[in-house]
Amino acid sequence: MADQDDDTILREREVDEGRDAYALDEGLRGELKALVAAGDVAAIDALMEPLHAADIADLLEQVSDGERAAWLGLWSKGIDGEVLSELDWGLREEVIALLPEQVLADAVRELDSDDVVDLVEDLEDEQIEQILDALEPADRVAVERALAYPEETAGRLMQREVVHAPEHWTVGEMIDHLRAHKRDLPEQFYHVILTDPRMKPTGYVTLGRLLSSARKTELREIVEDSFRTIPATQHEDDVAYAFNQYHLISAPVVDEDGRLVGVITIDDAMIVLDEAAEEDLLKLAGVGEESSLSDRVIETTKQRFPWLFVNLITAILASLVISQFEAAIAQIVALAVLMPIVASMGGNAGTQSLTVAVRAIATRDLTRSNLVRVVLREGAVGLINGAVFAVVMGVIGLFWFGNPMLGAVIAAAMIINLLVAGLAGILIPVALDRLNIDPALASGAFVTTVTDVVGFFAFLGLAVLVLL
Amino acid sequence: MADQDDDTILREREVDEGRDAYALDEGLRGELKALVAAGDVAAIDALMEPLHAADIADLLEQVSDGERAAWLGLWSKGIDGEVLSELDWGLREEVIALLPEQVLADAVRELDSDDVVDLVEDLEDEQIEQILDALEPADRVAVERALAYPEETAGRLMQREVVHAPEHWTVGEMIDHLRAHKRDLPEQFYHVILTDPRMKPTGYVTLGRLLSSARKTELREIVEDSFRTIPATQHEDDVAYAFNQYHLISAPVVDEDGRLVGVITIDDAMIVLDEAAEEDLLKLAGVGEESSLSDRVIETTKQRFPWLFVNLITAILASLVISQFEAAIAQIVALAVLMPIVASMGGNAGTQSLTVAVRAIATRDLTRSNLVRVVLREGAVGLINGAVFAVVMGVIGLFWFGNPMLGAVIAAAMIINLLVAGLAGILIPVALDRLNIDPALASGAFVTTVTDVVGFFAFLGLAVLVLL
Repeated sequence: MADQDDDTILREREVDEGRDAYALDEGLRGELKALVAAGDVAAIDALMEPLHAADIADLLEQVSDGERAAWLGLWSKGIDGEVLSELDWGLREEVIALLPEQVLADAVRELDSDDVVDLVEDLEDEQIEQILDALEPADRVAVERALAYPEETAGRLMQREVVHAPEHWTVGEMIDHLRAHKRDLPEQFYHVILTDPRMKPTGYVTLGRLLSSARKTELREIVEDSFRTIPATQHEDDVAYAFNQYHLISAPVVDEDGRLVGVITIDDAMIVLDEAAEEDLLKLAGVGEESSLSDRVIETTKQRFPWLFVNLITAILASLVISQFEAAIAQIVALAVLMPIVASMGGNAGTQSLTVAVRAIATRDLTRSNLVRVVLREGAVGLINGAVFAVVMGVIGLFWFGNPMLGAVIAAAMIINLLVAGLAGILIPVALDRLNIDPALASGAFVTTVTDVVGFFAFLGLAVLVLL
Repeated sequence: MADQDDDTILREREVDEGRDAYALDEGLRGELKALVAAGDVAAIDALMEPLHAADIADLLEQVSDGERAAWLGLWSKGIDGEVLSELDWGLREEVIALLPEQVLADAVRELDSDDVVDLVEDLEDEQIEQILDALEPADRVAVERALAYPEETAGRLMQREVVHAPEHWTVGEMIDHLRAHKRDLPEQFYHVILTDPRMKPTGYVTLGRLLSSARKTELREIVEDSFRTIPATQHEDDVAYAFNQYHLISAPVVDEDGRLVGVITIDDAMIVLDEAAEEDLLKLAGVGEESSLSDRVIETTKQRFPWLFVNLITAILASLVISQFEAAIAQIVALAVLMPIVASMGGNAGTQSLTVAVRAIATRDLTRSNLVRVVLREGAVGLINGAVFAVVMGVIGLFWFGNPMLGAVIAAAMIINLLVAGLAGILIPVALDRLNIDPALASGAFVTTVTDVVGFFAFLGLAVLVLL
């Protein structure tokens, strides 16, 4: 129980400072700007040479539009497929349009099929055609097949290059096979997938096991215990969930007949998972889920307008409630002074509950089996915090306005609104989810409406009953 | 440009329904409950047998306290180390306390050192001692060494079991070495790290390359181009950033002298990355960053209280502004009806900007080099949306209250508050970050205070100037 400061187990070394250990060198952009202005292509080459494609893409996102055009005008040959893959969705179209046809063709030809799919899937049809035309016929077919799967499914995420082998092969045969086909192997692979004669996957062997087993060992003897396949039409959120829940590194993808058609690796799943939490955050804040810093003013304004508009309607509804009590407010102006406090506290308590609920739905921690318990908990938390703040506000109301009944009214309204906020914060997202409406996107508006309306109505209504 | 519906490229197959493909079977909990009530240990065994440790942990989180105690009373032997690792932080302590000493000792003894570290680091000292005592002496030393690194650093994340080799070894020597030491290999590894005679890492070889190269090839010939090491004292957020930015699968960890001390794999980084976005979300909503559905009412109430308290102070500040205008409100009650609209719109616009800013700071997309541009953008977006809603509210003010000047006042206040909201939404998180205060945690309160105060002051102040 005791927190022993001198505990030897928890003795800590100094923490490394340097939050920006990996952030781009602030001077880099200035240097690049000067070189672009001077038109010094060789020096730009030298500056970019040590950078990772992801860092070049970040730099493209951070410079102004004019600088970007000037830079690409001088140095388009440095933009390879990887840089394009790393670019923000919003900027890809623009950069692709700025590239000479030959540079673009070379860039996409070096990518794996799953990266080409990721690159093109959000582009305009014309640009997709331009990129597909640049591919070798075989690669083009692979990309078109992947694009035939619906967006956000396993079929879009998977790579088609799979290392597989019959179960009866030995370690020696497998190694000889890999050595003979080294040119055709995917860039990254972590397992050999075992298949039956109909190409149905039956298990997998890790490369570590393969490397440490004797040549005569049969692959089926060193197969992993746990084995999961992913249907090609499964939603990418489910794929990411499976990787996260079961700590998968790669998993075979199968078609409707259970035949192996590809493999998904953890890096793809990590991107999906990372985006899911980020999207929930942006959606809860009423910002478009795809918004990014490189968006223009007009795009950004348009993305944010809808949520502000919904909020306006919510706010007007609340105002209509207030307008029902104009006579009371004219008599006791203190009501106008205090009423935003009740609404604001309710709004915040509701946002707390709904944020927890939205994430719990997304991570599948909130299910039918614990719903009742969680609803009761949220109600109880609202009631307790409501009671605490009721006391605080009652005292403030009393001393500020010298009116004990006004204190009692605001205290009662606080309890009611925080209880309602807790319940609305959980029940609204759950109900939206049941109706197949994205709770992250829509819950905020509903919950705020409820807490505003209930807050104003409870406070002003009680005031009319008690004070007038 | 055209969206061709019949486009063959984008022809889509049917999406697989089944969001709950991986969610726990809803019937499972009911079945378990019945078996626990009947005390049928063999049947519980059979029910749990096919489940992954992560699913058993989820089930432990979802049942009520009473059910959990009864279940563990009957079936504690099924709780192995992996299940403990998968449990929510809040429940671990409780479950560990419920386990017989021998079961706990067996459970932790089967875990890798990094998993033991992850398991114990948030426990009370007494429980840590109990678990350390259960370990073999060598494992205990490894865990204590890891715990000597500060919390949330690479040293805590890494596993100490590393596969490494001198650069001059051949593929054949490496494979023979792995076969000879197969019992000591870590459960998962993806690279062989090459080291110089002082144990400094010089590069790494993927297992795929190793398997597909001839026995006589020297390891240094097939080393990967890109190579990054991670200092043991680096913060885990920086580690996760590097894995995400550079698509790493595993990376060697080095001590202050550059010597190899461990390795971090992508699954560890994925957990950190996933938590980072989630924590920002919870912090922005004013919920404790470690809150979870299995927390009790009292814990949850305590976690949420501080933010509600901060919000109360904010709301009282706003009320103090309103109270300066009591005379005006007494004369024109319409002011009380309309004023929450201005404040609410400002609060929402501010939340939009600050959410984007907080995430951009976290993902390092917002830097000195694009700050001015982003601030100008947020200001412009605020101004444009402010102007649009000014027109809307001006018209509503005019028709609702039949007073054109009231419409003009609310329109002007709307423009002012949305401009201020946009600027505050970006400048406040950036300023907090510079002051080393977590912008996700603190920005919301500051921004809401600004938009409430400015909203009420602009609207009521202009009303006094123009209408009275």
